[in-house]
Amino acid sequence: MNIGGKPYRTLWELPGADGIEVIDQRVLPHRFATAVLRTAEDVAVAIREMYVRGAPLIGAAAGYGVYFAARSAAADGVATEVDRAAGLLAAARPTAVNLQWAIRFVLDQVHRGRTADDRRRLALAAARQIVADELDRSRRIGEHGLQLIRDVAARKGEVNVLTHCNAGWLACVDYGTATAPVYAAHEAGIPVHVWVDETRPRNQGAALTAFELGEHGVRHTVVADNAGGHLMQRGMVDLAIVGADRVAANGDTANKIGTYLKALAAHDTGVPFYVALPSSTVDWSLADGAGIPIEERSADEVRYIDGLGPRGPERVRLLPESSPAANPAFDVTPARLVTAFVTEHGVFPPTELRRRVQGR
Amino acid sequence: MNIGGKPYRTLWELPGADGIEVIDQRVLPHRFATAVLRTAEDVAVAIREMYVRGAPLIGAAAGYGVYFAARSAAADGVATEVDRAAGLLAAARPTAVNLQWAIRFVLDQVHRGRTADDRRRLALAAARQIVADELDRSRRIGEHGLQLIRDVAARKGEVNVLTHCNAGWLACVDYGTATAPVYAAHEAGIPVHVWVDETRPRNQGAALTAFELGEHGVRHTVVADNAGGHLMQRGMVDLAIVGADRVAANGDTANKIGTYLKALAAHDTGVPFYVALPSSTVDWSLADGAGIPIEERSADEVRYIDGLGPRGPERVRLLPESSPAANPAFDVTPARLVTAFVTEHGVFPPTELRRRVQGR
Repeated sequence: MNIGGKPYRTLWELPGADGIEVIDQRVLPHRFATAVLRTAEDVAVAIREMYVRGAPLIGAAAGYGVYFAARSAAADGVATEVDRAAGLLAAARPTAVNLQWAIRFVLDQVHRGRTADDRRRLALAAARQIVADELDRSRRIGEHGLQLIRDVAARKGEVNVLTHCNAGWLACVDYGTATAPVYAAHEAGIPVHVWVDETRPRNQGAALTAFELGEHGVRHTVVADNAGGHLMQRGMVDLAIVGADRVAANGDTANKIGTYLKALAAHDTGVPFYVALPSSTVDWSLADGAGIPIEERSADEVRYIDGLGPRGPERVRLLPESSPAANPAFDVTPARLVTAFVTEHGVFPPTELRRRVQGR
Repeated sequence: MNIGGKPYRTLWELPGADGIEVIDQRVLPHRFATAVLRTAEDVAVAIREMYVRGAPLIGAAAGYGVYFAARSAAADGVATEVDRAAGLLAAARPTAVNLQWAIRFVLDQVHRGRTADDRRRLALAAARQIVADELDRSRRIGEHGLQLIRDVAARKGEVNVLTHCNAGWLACVDYGTATAPVYAAHEAGIPVHVWVDETRPRNQGAALTAFELGEHGVRHTVVADNAGGHLMQRGMVDLAIVGADRVAANGDTANKIGTYLKALAAHDTGVPFYVALPSSTVDWSLADGAGIPIEERSADEVRYIDGLGPRGPERVRLLPESSPAANPAFDVTPARLVTAFVTEHGVFPPTELRRRVQGR
């Protein structure tokens, strides 16, 4: 997608695959900067410090991290070096399922090689494969979701979409998940406008989703997380689309805290509520959402907020000094509140999840 | 209620009713300051600039504003002077129904007087009456609501209450509306803990409710507005209590934006959802909530936030420079989602509103 009129991805190879360059998402939306990563250690830091974030993007970056370890190892040390790097990378965000999967995927390829060169070649091919597959999935989610937006447009012209958090291209390599249908609609010339939930406490909506939509030229309006129900009551939302962090086999969906409240409002007001995801987000080992662990993050994310002050980036305290805060980072939306999943396999209700993804 | 161990009200008379002193709520929670108001103009500025806020408190302050005009007028000019002051005060917050009511109440008393001294005496008595009645209503809301908390405590010991925005003593003269039952329970030795919604975009929960509960020694935890549904799903909320800005005759309740989302979550999870209000908040001219006007406030309240930075109070921007924002300030919770109203007349479901308040 575009930034400042120029097409970007969140991650790209330097010439000769000598390193990767990534958008430094810590300083958005107030500053656009990139960072060059040339070693597994660089990648681990970028994941841990959240230069890169979003499950698909973290996985893609980690794939290159394993490759960098293979590349820089001595000829007789590739196998041990990639294992060491894998441990380092996996520890950077211990709860990210997709990260573990991507690391395992590259490792499996590396260990098939018989010579050091073989192993290096296989590692790079695997890292590139992760990126290519990720792009393909996002593109297909966009194509399938486009039809939903097209249907509304045929009925009423402009389409108003509400989204929560950032399941945008900044969380992926390009296109995004929840935003993929929006970008596809924009591309197709359909007038689309996005209500962007601020998404406290980390403000991924206000900082990232608003930034990426604005830079690509998609009309949008940021609202406090409190506002979405009211907008739906007043008929100002045609459909809601969010991403997912983990989906149980029955369709219960863990996503950024506050998603459940928007799903309730959509259900109460008759607004379709869609969850966009690559099918790899489904955790078949969990029968329902009760088993999904909910990360409790630092209370300081509620107590303080980052913004741009008159003298540059600034962190300010919002609470009385002695008031405690709690910060559950995700909630679980019951499958009964999800109108349909939008996946690379198509659009279908939660009851069809197993059949459509696993073919049974 | 207490601040720093010392009992306070939001407004008190100076000796000889020579003026009133109010807590300057603009600088909470980071600084505690008071302001002395001696003229109708002083009071109008304090209302307009939000030194004082909250419907009951604004009404109480305005009553004194009319009295100050009567006091300082020449003997033959009291009647015209109070009318002029009334216009000035009413314009300070044009949408506050309670403000108009309080001004009218004092004016009606003044115009009964036959001499200038008579009129001044009547104005002061009326202003004091507003404060006394306000205190009495809050106290009775607290007593009626206490029983709800007591019932939960009898069943399970500690009681977890969730509230939204600030319907606390800082919005009233003392006790509050939504917080009155909490303070009554605290007083009665019942272990009570309050989940305080941050309440974006103006953060009245994080800045005011957290402050007043903390200073009075009531256990509380601030959460992002997004978190309440999750807390209810996990059984961490025993009851929700919020205030109201305007209630229609059928019980539909306009309150701070986001209230509707919490009411939906409470309904979905079986948590009782109470609305605490003095019955003067009911607008009998409105059959239902569809007619309640929703104030759209400045987008800058979403785009910027105030907090305490390393060098003192600071305003920082949260959004990309070019991203627009919208800021509806209230939403309407349908009566079907309200378990009961907690009023000075007792606790009863929305269907009983007219009978219990109007006696028919």
